[in-house]
Amino acid sequence: MWTLHQFPLCPFSRKVRILLGEKSIAYDLVQRRPWDEGDDLWRLNDAGRVPVLEDKARNIALCDSRAICEYLEETVERSPMLAGSALARAETRRLVALFEENFHADVVAPLLHEKMTKRLVLRQPPDGRVLREAMKRAHGHLDYIDWLVDNRSWLAGSTMSLADLAAAAQVSVADYLGGIDWRGHDQARGWYAVFKSRPSFRPLLAEKMEGIHPPSHYAMVDG
Amino acid sequence: MWTLHQFPLCPFSRKVRILLGEKSIAYDLVQRRPWDEGDDLWRLNDAGRVPVLEDKARNIALCDSRAICEYLEETVERSPMLAGSALARAETRRLVALFEENFHADVVAPLLHEKMTKRLVLRQPPDGRVLREAMKRAHGHLDYIDWLVDNRSWLAGSTMSLADLAAAAQVSVADYLGGIDWRGHDQARGWYAVFKSRPSFRPLLAEKMEGIHPPSHYAMVDG
Ligand SMILES: N[C@@H](CCC(=O)N[C@@H](CS)C(=O)NCC(=O)O)C(=O)O
Ligand SMILES: N[C@@H](CCC(=O)N[C@@H](CS)C(=O)NCC(=O)O)C(=O)O
Repeated sequence: MWTLHQFPLCPFSRKVRILLGEKSIAYDLVQRRPWDEGDDLWRLNDAGRVPVLEDKARNIALCDSRAICEYLEETVERSPMLAGSALARAETRRLVALFEENFHADVVAPLLHEKMTKRLVLRQPPDGRVLREAMKRAHGHLDYIDWLVDNRSWLAGSTMSLADLAAAAQVSVADYLGGIDWRGHDQARGWYAVFKSRPSFRPLLAEKMEGIHPPSHYAMVDG
Repeated sequence: MWTLHQFPLCPFSRKVRILLGEKSIAYDLVQRRPWDEGDDLWRLNDAGRVPVLEDKARNIALCDSRAICEYLEETVERSPMLAGSALARAETRRLVALFEENFHADVVAPLLHEKMTKRLVLRQPPDGRVLREAMKRAHGHLDYIDWLVDNRSWLAGSTMSLADLAAAAQVSVADYLGGIDWRGHDQARGWYAVFKSRPSFRPLLAEKMEGIHPPSHYAMVDG
């Protein structure tokens, strides 16, 4: 049985959870706080990060969400999320990197810092200027999702892939933190609404991070 | 014929070049300056980054170094660098992420900012405090390489893999920028010396980045 070490607002852990859900793989959750000295996460992951997907019985601890997803793709055939030709797979992986690096750095990381780390760790108020800049940058990335969805059924091509999972995971954390203004992004919103209604995604939307409240539209399928 | 868009001190591009070399795949180089407004890199890569591996004749532009390496692994059997069981592959990918995210963020990114970006773009002197902190953090990562090399033939296991390529690429940029103090790291130094003497690596060591000079030991195989 797998155990996923994570916390509710970690977008990389969310991607792994959606994949586990899509593949109908059972798992337990353990909540971690990588920012706490007391957390012994370093014993599991030399990078001190979540997610870690552990199978204690087999003495396995998989680290890094892309490595975890590739492992699950290689070992569980059900609901493939990295399918097609080598070129199609390269396109999927390009988009995973784009959302997990560029969208993350421009939007999700500053929101997490201002609204989560400052509240839970630093005990400081968020900086409004940083929040506004992140929301402004979010528009550029949502324009890109609009454009992809105008041209393809799913972000990387004709079927749902890790690109959709990675993007939806990042977007969902930004949306939880009030960083997404959906006005003017009907295509992106339509794509994301489909995700929000999937059984693999519903449990994530129902979870809260202590002391941090999402906007009212966050968990609504047509929100 | 492939064209690799890159600049000499980009560690992600270096990894791709070593892989192309190991697999004996011919390619041309085009030098890019992602920090220049005038560079039309955005036409090739929606993330505005190097490396991009292009095949104009086939109208292909592969973006993101991990996506590029996976593509080359899937399409060229020679000199496999992501071999073994799904678990072994997960271990390789975990280490690629560790060196490209943690080592990069702790050591390579601050060195590049202080010694390259400030010189070529911002026209500011480097901040000695930041450089010292990066070098201090480098020691921790070199300890980790020492430990891996004590326990395994190569970083991820019994054969050379993308983990070695990624680590050597990151280390080489830090070394070029004077950020590596090899004293006390005999195992890491031995592992890196083997790399430095490989035909896939020699061309990299011979290249210079305009206006930035590496220390004298940088290109010496026993340096
Ligand atoms: N590339 C990693 C990134 C994981 C990551 O950044 N996790 C964050 C939480 S969202 C973390 O644990 N940060 C703590 C730290 O870096 O010290 C992955 O895909 O798993
Ligand atoms: N995950 C990417 C990272 C590439 C990257 O960060 N490239 C840097 C140069 S070393 C770059 O082009 N930066 C310009 C920018 O981000 O605007 C990869 O593996 O290719």
